[in-house]
Amino acid sequence: MKELTIVKIGGIVIDQEENLKQFLSDFCELKGHKILVHGGGKLADQLSQKLGYKVKLIDGRRITDESAIKVVTMVYGGLINKQIVAALQGFKCNAMGLTGADANLILSHKRPDRGIDYGYVGDIDHVDAVGIQALLEQGITPVFAALTHDGQGNLLNTNADTIAASLATAASHLFNVRLIYCFEKKGVLTNISDDDSIINCLSYEHYQELRKSGTIAQGMLPKLDNAFETIGHGVKEVIICYAGDLKKITLDKESLGTKLEF
Amino acid sequence: MKELTIVKIGGIVIDQEENLKQFLSDFCELKGHKILVHGGGKLADQLSQKLGYKVKLIDGRRITDESAIKVVTMVYGGLINKQIVAALQGFKCNAMGLTGADANLILSHKRPDRGIDYGYVGDIDHVDAVGIQALLEQGITPVFAALTHDGQGNLLNTNADTIAASLATAASHLFNVRLIYCFEKKGVLTNISDDDSIINCLSYEHYQELRKSGTIAQGMLPKLDNAFETIGHGVKEVIICYAGDLKKITLDKESLGTKLEF
Repeated sequence: MKELTIVKIGGIVIDQEENLKQFLSDFCELKGHKILVHGGGKLADQLSQKLGYKVKLIDGRRITDESAIKVVTMVYGGLINKQIVAALQGFKCNAMGLTGADANLILSHKRPDRGIDYGYVGDIDHVDAVGIQALLEQGITPVFAALTHDGQGNLLNTNADTIAASLATAASHLFNVRLIYCFEKKGVLTNISDDDSIINCLSYEHYQELRKSGTIAQGMLPKLDNAFETIGHGVKEVIICYAGDLKKITLDKESLGTKLEF
Repeated sequence: MKELTIVKIGGIVIDQEENLKQFLSDFCELKGHKILVHGGGKLADQLSQKLGYKVKLIDGRRITDESAIKVVTMVYGGLINKQIVAALQGFKCNAMGLTGADANLILSHKRPDRGIDYGYVGDIDHVDAVGIQALLEQGITPVFAALTHDGQGNLLNTNADTIAASLATAASHLFNVRLIYCFEKKGVLTNISDDDSIINCLSYEHYQELRKSGTIAQGMLPKLDNAFETIGHGVKEVIICYAGDLKKITLDKESLGTKLEF
C-alpha cells in the first residue's frame, strides 16, 4: 500500500500569517500523498463579533445556531480554506479545498438533542475513502475545512481533530496512513506550563493513567481519544507536535513531538 | 464526444432563497455532464456594509481591494458556494464546490493597471479542461464560484459570466458544449422594460446592429460579447434565458429565451 500523510493544523498557527506561510511551505515538501485538515482559529469569533452575533454557550458548550453556521461556512469553508489553497498553489502543491459536502466526501448527522441542542453540529457517519483516493491519484492534495453535511441540504460544523481522525481511519484500508496533529505546543506535556515536559512516546496504558491522575490537560483529551482510536483502527503512526517541527519530523526523521503507541 | 452543459446562474436568483432552491432542483434533473457557475448577488455588498467596508469605485468601476477580496472569498467561495453544494447534494446531485485556485483549474493574472488599478481582479489565462474532465468522469458536478488565482498565492475576483464562457471554450475540445446563461429576464430584450420583447434567435450580425443602435441594454453587452466569442471557439449552443425556464428548455425542449447564432 502507498503512504498517505494526514496533517491537521490547529487554530493558533492559522491566526499567525507568517507562521502559517512557513508551515504551508514545509507541508508542500512532504513526499507522497498528503491531506491537510484545518480548523478556524479566532477568525470566526472575530467575524461573529463584528457582525454583532453573540457566541451562544449552554453549560459552557458552544452552540452553532443559524448565524454561527453561516459565519463558519464563510470563514472555514471560504476565507481560510481558499487562502490556504492559493498559498499552497503558490508553493506548487496542487491543493484542492473541500468540505465534507463536496463530492459527498464526509457525511454526518446533526448531533441529537440529549439535553443540549448543539445546533448545526455534525457527528461523522461515513467518509468516502475511495473518492478521496481518486483525487489523490490525480495528483491532488485535498485541504479539508471543518465542515461536513447531512445529505439533506445542511452544512454541519464538525471538529477538525475528529475530521482528521475519521479521514485517517477510513483511508487506512487503502493506504499506510500517518496522522500528524500540528499545534502550538511541542507535544503532549505532563505540565502544561513547562514546554519541555514532553512525553516522547505515549502508550495507551500510560495515557489512561495520566488521564486518571489529571496530569494531561483537559483540552488534550478529545484530541488524544480521537488519536488513539485511529491506531486501534489501522492507522500506522500518530504524532502530536509543534507545527514548526513538521519538516524536521517528516524529512529529517528527527524524534520530536509525542508519538502514540497502542 | 459526450455532451456537457454549463449553466451560469446570476445574482438576483441567488438572492431569493425559494427561487434558488427551485432552480437547483431543476438543474439536478439535467441529463449528462454538467457544471454550474455562480456569482455572488448582493450578499457580498451586504457583508461589506455590515463590516464597515466602503465599496470602492473609480470612474464607476468597482475596485477589489484587500478587504473586498476577503469578503468575496467568504461570500462567493464559502457561503454561497457551499450552500449550493449542500443543497445539490440534498437533491442527490454529486456537486463539488470549486474556485479557480482549487486543483489549479483556472489560472489568471491580475488585471494590469492601465489608468485604473482594479485591485485583486483576474483575467483568465488558462482553464485545465482535462482536470475538469477527470472530475466529470468520476460523476462529479463542479460548482464554480467567481474566483480564480494567479499561481503566486493570490486569489482574484473574476466575472462569473467570463468564467462560464472560458470553461465552455476550453471544454469544447473534449465535449459537445452547451452554455446556458440563466438570469431574471426572459432572454435578450429589445426593450428592457418590456418583458415580452424577447429576441428568440440572435445572430452575430443582428447583435452588431442592435449594439450600434443602442437597442440592447448596456449590462448585456459584456455577457453577449463573451457568449458570441464561445461560439466562434467551438461551443455548440448558447442560450440566454430566465432561470425558471431551465427545465422547460433542457428537458421539454421548449424554445424559450434567446438562442445565439454565429
